[in-house]
Amino acid sequence: MAVYTEVTDEALIHFVAEYDIGEVVAFRGIAEGVENSNYSLRTTSGDFILTLYEKRVDPADLPWFLGLMEHLAKRGVPCPLPVKGQDGNALRALAGRPAAITTFLPGVWPRRVRPEHCAPLGEALARLHLAGEDFTTARRNALGPDGWPPLWERARTHADSLRPGLAAEIDSALARVLDLWPVDLPAGHIHADLFPDNVFFLAGRVSGLIDFYFAATDILSYDIAVCLNAWCFEPDYDFNVTKARAMLRGYQSLRPLSQPEQQALPVLSQGAAIRFFLTRLFDWVHTPAGALVTRKDPLEYLRRLRFHLAATDERAYGL
Amino acid sequence: MAVYTEVTDEALIHFVAEYDIGEVVAFRGIAEGVENSNYSLRTTSGDFILTLYEKRVDPADLPWFLGLMEHLAKRGVPCPLPVKGQDGNALRALAGRPAAITTFLPGVWPRRVRPEHCAPLGEALARLHLAGEDFTTARRNALGPDGWPPLWERARTHADSLRPGLAAEIDSALARVLDLWPVDLPAGHIHADLFPDNVFFLAGRVSGLIDFYFAATDILSYDIAVCLNAWCFEPDYDFNVTKARAMLRGYQSLRPLSQPEQQALPVLSQGAAIRFFLTRLFDWVHTPAGALVTRKDPLEYLRRLRFHLAATDERAYGL
Repeated sequence: MAVYTEVTDEALIHFVAEYDIGEVVAFRGIAEGVENSNYSLRTTSGDFILTLYEKRVDPADLPWFLGLMEHLAKRGVPCPLPVKGQDGNALRALAGRPAAITTFLPGVWPRRVRPEHCAPLGEALARLHLAGEDFTTARRNALGPDGWPPLWERARTHADSLRPGLAAEIDSALARVLDLWPVDLPAGHIHADLFPDNVFFLAGRVSGLIDFYFAATDILSYDIAVCLNAWCFEPDYDFNVTKARAMLRGYQSLRPLSQPEQQALPVLSQGAAIRFFLTRLFDWVHTPAGALVTRKDPLEYLRRLRFHLAATDERAYGL
Repeated sequence: MAVYTEVTDEALIHFVAEYDIGEVVAFRGIAEGVENSNYSLRTTSGDFILTLYEKRVDPADLPWFLGLMEHLAKRGVPCPLPVKGQDGNALRALAGRPAAITTFLPGVWPRRVRPEHCAPLGEALARLHLAGEDFTTARRNALGPDGWPPLWERARTHADSLRPGLAAEIDSALARVLDLWPVDLPAGHIHADLFPDNVFFLAGRVSGLIDFYFAATDILSYDIAVCLNAWCFEPDYDFNVTKARAMLRGYQSLRPLSQPEQQALPVLSQGAAIRFFLTRLFDWVHTPAGALVTRKDPLEYLRRLRFHLAATDERAYGL
């Protein structure tokens, strides 16, 4: 469910009149996405996405996110291009929320990932990293390693009720990952949340990368580690090395990984698993049972974490 | 939330290939709707809605619903037209569900009803009733008066926990309404669920009537009573007689109501309030707290019911 804030037709018409995009023809809530309210908006001049930013997004970050998207889109990355109003601003307010209109991207996100998706995904991720090189402002990754201990602190007491022994297992894994976390790897702007529902495909190619609202400036290969977690496990949590190899080959065809980047894949993947485990655990504990949002099972990331902890080196990922 | 069943891109591509509508360009879940899974589908030949029918819809009813929609659309009612596959069938299966593609309708449904919406609404409802006249097969209204006592039976024990005294209040109202229920009023095919989110407006006119999956053959003016409940109460449950008058005038401009139909408006409106009260109460009682669906408060319809019980005659509705 991704409509938390309703927009009246009057407010919508006034809002759209602040742009040079014609008049409203259709307006439907989009089911995908969990953080913000997204609407598909058709006007007499074309199709757009209207996003209302909900409480989890810090309004102070929005100019950076929109700036990065504009930068990437202008360099050929198929990401939403923020549309500017007649006043030159892409960011404004609607129904009491910060809001922006972006371009519509064609394609279908893969409900079931196949190996054929993974090489184009890797290429698209490399393109994103390369195109971001000359975007000069940085955004600290609030959900990077510095963010994990405080998040864990606020959910730890509930862990053992989810599974006995879980608190001790995460204590140990988190300590290990923070201890081994690499410090000298190439950094840049990362998507940081490139799950299958954020990647559209059309005729076997990536036609859209969306949802940049966790993007940040961090280790580039951490983005690969997020994708290894999000794209390369089967529903039974078996790791599919064919998918991983295809993804890494696609990535390296455009941006070859250095030796240290390759060697860091296990610890980066452990960190990525911990990051999604922690935010899911936090939501699990803090989401009221009757809430609109589906709570996602944190233990899915415990299963992934265990795989990465057992990976002795980058060969576990097909390198 | 209106995506209960996910469709893989492979299954989607095979499914769309059974139609002459080109190839898939985009596919997004639609947030609106609570009974079925709805997707906005764009192909190289245009825009469509793909609906997967979920458990609440009896598959045996689907040919009737789709037949009615086709009948109405061909007579100029702006409702979705079921698209037939190459085999001539509009109804087929996808992801283990009955599924159909219908045409896309432009417009925006009113999040906040204004009096200006009500005359076009009334006209559109009358057009729907008139266009349905020569659709010859009938469908019994499972949620008509015969359906209320068994529904009440299954939820009654929980009523007093919602509000003390509620069971006795509904007992009495239900007995009264069933006793006074009119038997000789003009009947036909009714939408039976024409809430604001099922009506699209564009430039002040009705551009779409959707969601015919409660449609049935019943008293025509009962459909008006549903709309009086759904469109004419303010958020504080005050009845807005200006809206009611506009709606009734719009309706009567195309299909004047007979004296008995006008006189029956209070009891029909009581019945409509009871119908939505009962299904909401049933869902309230039987929906697990963690479910994806937002439970709607049944007491909103108790408030409406009380207004209608106090209405001594049709003048309460602006006639």
